[in-house]
Amino acid sequence: MRRLFYAGEFAEEIEITDGDAHHLARVMRAQLGDEVVVADGDGRTARMRVSGIDRDAVRLHLVEYMAPEVSASTEVILVQALLKGEKMDFVVQKAVELGASALYPIETEHVVVRYDAKKAAAKSVRWQKIADEAAKQCGRSALMRVAAIAPLFALLQDAALFDTPDTAVVFCYEAEHTQSMRTVLRSVDARRIVLIVGAEGGFSPTEAAAIQVAGAQSVSLGRLILRAETAALAALAVTQYELGNFAF
Amino acid sequence: MRRLFYAGEFAEEIEITDGDAHHLARVMRAQLGDEVVVADGDGRTARMRVSGIDRDAVRLHLVEYMAPEVSASTEVILVQALLKGEKMDFVVQKAVELGASALYPIETEHVVVRYDAKKAAAKSVRWQKIADEAAKQCGRSALMRVAAIAPLFALLQDAALFDTPDTAVVFCYEAEHTQSMRTVLRSVDARRIVLIVGAEGGFSPTEAAAIQVAGAQSVSLGRLILRAETAALAALAVTQYELGNFAF
Repeated sequence: MRRLFYAGEFAEEIEITDGDAHHLARVMRAQLGDEVVVADGDGRTARMRVSGIDRDAVRLHLVEYMAPEVSASTEVILVQALLKGEKMDFVVQKAVELGASALYPIETEHVVVRYDAKKAAAKSVRWQKIADEAAKQCGRSALMRVAAIAPLFALLQDAALFDTPDTAVVFCYEAEHTQSMRTVLRSVDARRIVLIVGAEGGFSPTEAAAIQVAGAQSVSLGRLILRAETAALAALAVTQYELGNFAF
Repeated sequence: MRRLFYAGEFAEEIEITDGDAHHLARVMRAQLGDEVVVADGDGRTARMRVSGIDRDAVRLHLVEYMAPEVSASTEVILVQALLKGEKMDFVVQKAVELGASALYPIETEHVVVRYDAKKAAAKSVRWQKIADEAAKQCGRSALMRVAAIAPLFALLQDAALFDTPDTAVVFCYEAEHTQSMRTVLRSVDARRIVLIVGAEGGFSPTEAAAIQVAGAQSVSLGRLILRAETAALAALAVTQYELGNFAF
């Protein structure tokens, strides 16, 4: 069923306008009488029926409130080395769709882009905006948090992220040829999975060693060389799949 | 280990030039003495050691020929409804990285872009070029074939694609809320898996019925609304993962 996000307050009859109306009527091709699932900012959801389609607005009639969305029992976090402009935007958007709860952009040795403090702050704002927009489009009621850019070694010292008993850290490492993603994902019983994905040039041996010392398990994503953004998406997709979050 | 494609003939010493040399030295950051895996167009592979790095060329010294690459025992084919320009290019590239053996672009009711015969032919050429380039970059020895654009209903009558005992057809359908990808993937014992993914607006009820009549099993990719290109990538990634192709 089509899902959409509604910023206002639920009522017997609500009106969707502007871009959302266009998306619902044109892109998602909702028809009069169709049922859709509407989420509000507080995580409430309701089934509603399309009761009117105008040029600039779609009216929805409440069918029933739904039981609270059960949040995925295991949280998935993406730690992503900075990629060039468009690719990072893309990974942010896709991480939202693939259900990541947070994204930590990191600087590593092989990262090509470098931002000064001002530019880094602007990037954070931009990525959070992309993430919020994507959450709306994909019908997520909880937003994905984009953290500030940090150097890898600083992040590795974040005990709240890495050093908790309920966390499994999975390190997508191009030099790992033995341990598969599957072996690791099926062996973890964690409430939080942190995925670490590098930039185009991967990680330096020093970085890889430090990540492993921080408790990460390195995994291979197969014989083909995945571009960085493909690795991030594939890692997120298979993790959600293994956690059972690709079921309705 | 880094992998690259070499169009020439293997020898004790080979020279990588131009874009490939740049990719190896700058993007993949190969260093003197590093070992890389080189594939040629015939599917032969060899381990080689970097013996020289110049401005425009990288020299490689043969270490040993490798046992023939075992091709994935199950072939994965993507049937993708046409997406707007850039998004289709993107899906083509990612399908190669994620190991699809062929991609069939299809026209469906909700497809927004329409091409005349001339434009369609030009698109085919373009997509095949993108696919071949991607195969080179990701170290694939077998190329991905991009079929000509066809209407969905014509494709569904292609007995060679759908109506063979060794083929399982998985239909990513936004209105499927019961059957999960996992249930279906774990129940199939096929030599070929065909994934069907729609355009932004999904499939019409008539199309969905016809796809199911053609023998496809419809699956849900979860509660979030994935953009069409995300659905294609996620479906490919989890299929390869389930088939064990994400292991080295």
